[in-house]
Amino acid sequence: MQRLYAGIDIGGTAIKAGLLTRSGAVLISGQSPTRAKKGPHGVLEDALGLIGRLLESIGADWQAVDGIGMGVPGMVDGTVVTEATNLGWGRLELGQALAELTPLPLRLANDADAAALGEIRVGAAKGLRSAFLLTLGTGLGGGIILDGHIYSGHRGFGGEIGHMSLVSGGRVCSCGRRGCAEQYLSATALVKEAKRACRRYPDSTLLKLPSISAKEIFDSSDSDSCCAELVEQYTARLSELCLDIANAFRPEAILLGGGVARAGEKLTAPVQQALNRFSFARAYAPPIPVLPAALGNDAGFIGAACLWL
Amino acid sequence: MQRLYAGIDIGGTAIKAGLLTRSGAVLISGQSPTRAKKGPHGVLEDALGLIGRLLESIGADWQAVDGIGMGVPGMVDGTVVTEATNLGWGRLELGQALAELTPLPLRLANDADAAALGEIRVGAAKGLRSAFLLTLGTGLGGGIILDGHIYSGHRGFGGEIGHMSLVSGGRVCSCGRRGCAEQYLSATALVKEAKRACRRYPDSTLLKLPSISAKEIFDSSDSDSCCAELVEQYTARLSELCLDIANAFRPEAILLGGGVARAGEKLTAPVQQALNRFSFARAYAPPIPVLPAALGNDAGFIGAACLWL
Repeated sequence: MQRLYAGIDIGGTAIKAGLLTRSGAVLISGQSPTRAKKGPHGVLEDALGLIGRLLESIGADWQAVDGIGMGVPGMVDGTVVTEATNLGWGRLELGQALAELTPLPLRLANDADAAALGEIRVGAAKGLRSAFLLTLGTGLGGGIILDGHIYSGHRGFGGEIGHMSLVSGGRVCSCGRRGCAEQYLSATALVKEAKRACRRYPDSTLLKLPSISAKEIFDSSDSDSCCAELVEQYTARLSELCLDIANAFRPEAILLGGGVARAGEKLTAPVQQALNRFSFARAYAPPIPVLPAALGNDAGFIGAACLWL
Repeated sequence: MQRLYAGIDIGGTAIKAGLLTRSGAVLISGQSPTRAKKGPHGVLEDALGLIGRLLESIGADWQAVDGIGMGVPGMVDGTVVTEATNLGWGRLELGQALAELTPLPLRLANDADAAALGEIRVGAAKGLRSAFLLTLGTGLGGGIILDGHIYSGHRGFGGEIGHMSLVSGGRVCSCGRRGCAEQYLSATALVKEAKRACRRYPDSTLLKLPSISAKEIFDSSDSDSCCAELVEQYTARLSELCLDIANAFRPEAILLGGGVARAGEKLTAPVQQALNRFSFARAYAPPIPVLPAALGNDAGFIGAACLWL
């Protein structure tokens, strides 16, 4: 009987899950809504129900599963969730809660950390030992992989790359600091910046759109001056954050994921250029590749299962 | 026969060395000038000569030594030095060069990394598993210890904390970037800033000194407005760098060493306050202690020997 690992990504709106083989191949995946109001116990029941249905549809049963990997949007310390605001969870002994529902062992990670692990095991950074994943989405999340494993700091309280300072004395962040990277590099921040910039560019194509997206801004940057300016500023700032990461941590690769990363080369190329030109050890060291993340929305559950591989 | 480990710190002006026991106690230490003009072979001969004299003075011989640990001011990859500008060394197979002089095995590290290892094994962070050491001296060096070991990035090209950006669009650094932390937080930078500030404070006590030092600036900050302003600005900037480290890497401690750290609490207290007030996980996590480094100028050779412990 082929041995399987269940990967579960508990998101604010959806639970995504899949069954992986020992070699990291995804046999099947699916999703169901996150009914956060049911509380942790209910959400875990739903997640196991989803895995049960996936097993059934490939003609397997729970006997084939050797372990459950789970990613949650919050801080994680071992199998304890310290907090997961989006789910309305405070401190939660998730390992104990799951043990009431299944005898299978659990490995737990922050969702962005799990995504980074997925990318280095079977995604864009496959074969490498270290990588930083920056997720440029609603917020600016990220995951750090050092020496093949997730690095999340002492008791899981680190890895908050979005709360490194980018603009000295800049905008006040929800965390209380000023100038945090998230305030400038999330997709949300880019769209806000675009709305401000439009006032100076009354002819911008952005004003004709029902709603502005990061992709639209990058797509129009060759023909629209407003978009060109936005992209130049955004990529210059992202380059600064990547240079900080390069100089202090010198990972083997920097991966860009999330909504903004759908811009592809228009995003990665200028950042790559800045790293090649300004990173500290450039005279001796090979360039650090800047790559688009490869696993998209599946990275979370794939990486969660990879906690077992 | 007690087993010994030889620690050697090759500096730009002096070779410092000592003999340590397996438990990390320093039995004896000494130093000799670095005669860089003699080339790597000559410098290594001098270093071994120094160790030989230390052994003799405690009535031991080379048979008692199990390993040599060495710190060099440059980038290190295994037992290869990638470059060490201060010594005039380019790429150097240091392990091979040493093997021509002694059969003893070598472990090699960057000098600031070695110092950080010394601090976590037997110094200010003893008993912890992770710490960042910031050396606020002629430059801004630093060492990163994660999970009990030196972290210096892929092939030793990382760990350049002084070249993380601190002031966006700020001063041009020798590395080519703008606004690097070293341009604001080294002792050299603080003294330069003091000279500029004195123009606005013609009554400052600093103008009466034959030369300005970081210690003097901190010492006079209670009575001299110019010094008070300098200290406030310096500690605010250092706090920003420490917050970046705290949010991204959450070490168990941040250690401050180098000339500026002789200011003691006047330096550490405001940084500690900023970390307690603004670090990302402050609502859940215990505060990250900000501590003065404990081993001073001995940290390099002690840490180098600790590569064996």
